[in-house]
Amino acid sequence: METKLAPAAEEAGECFPVRRLQITDKSKGFIDLLGQLTVCDPISDEQFLARFQDLKSNGDDHVICVIEDDHSGRIIATGSVFVEKKFIRNCGKVGHIEDVVVDSGARGKHLGQKIVRFLLDHARSMGCYKVILDCDVENKGFYEKCGFKEKSVQMAMYLD
Amino acid sequence: METKLAPAAEEAGECFPVRRLQITDKSKGFIDLLGQLTVCDPISDEQFLARFQDLKSNGDDHVICVIEDDHSGRIIATGSVFVEKKFIRNCGKVGHIEDVVVDSGARGKHLGQKIVRFLLDHARSMGCYKVILDCDVENKGFYEKCGFKEKSVQMAMYLD
Repeated sequence: METKLAPAAEEAGECFPVRRLQITDKSKGFIDLLGQLTVCDPISDEQFLARFQDLKSNGDDHVICVIEDDHSGRIIATGSVFVEKKFIRNCGKVGHIEDVVVDSGARGKHLGQKIVRFLLDHARSMGCYKVILDCDVENKGFYEKCGFKEKSVQMAMYLD
Repeated sequence: METKLAPAAEEAGECFPVRRLQITDKSKGFIDLLGQLTVCDPISDEQFLARFQDLKSNGDDHVICVIEDDHSGRIIATGSVFVEKKFIRNCGKVGHIEDVVVDSGARGKHLGQKIVRFLLDHARSMGCYKVILDCDVENKGFYEKCGFKEKSVQMAMYLD
């Protein structure tokens, strides 16, 4: 199933291009945005830079994308995908989508769909045979609209 | 919740140590074992070696462990964990457990629990704040015994 570009945003002449995370996005509210998803305390510039470089060293195997609002200069949507290399399925690869969030003030513009489509396109270009993600029951409908199907149960253990 | 060592195996004097995957494990039935989990066609020695080296380059961020049966020299259990680095939770890390399988002829010895415990210990040593996995509903009870709790829904999209 193909996701459609949001008509509302198109009609308003808004484009909202999706691009990869840049170092300067920390000062544009990237970490604040993640705070709308889960626990995300402020981190120092040094911490941000270290993690950014660490992820960068994975090349195309771990990509974080963002949408920047041209008017405000703020990051208003983000998501990530990383590529897991397996032995099963003829040494196949699986894309794992994580940490998708749209700013609460920017809902209704289908930015989430744009983020997910960008991540899916990337996983496809990396040769993944499957993309998976975990979500709360209330977000199932959104991911079904993006073309996903419910597959199984996510189990978790907190270690700290 | 702490997993317990299988009393049945202990009483029988069997030890079943868990160790990391080695190149020679291909000839010990590692790929055949994965075939009990999902689609896993035979792969060439070259394919195996290339993927093995690729995963090895991730160091401790992606670990596959196995149990070898001393008597038969066959690999009878396996599982993997990889470490995802995030910005949330103070640049936290999450362990993802994948591809846990025990040979159908070696069930009842709690080898699955030993594999999961090894992977959890590794994730803990890597500083993960959480470990997650996806499983079919019928395997929920097993992972609950290992200390996991149901968290959310896994969604999937097949790309080929």
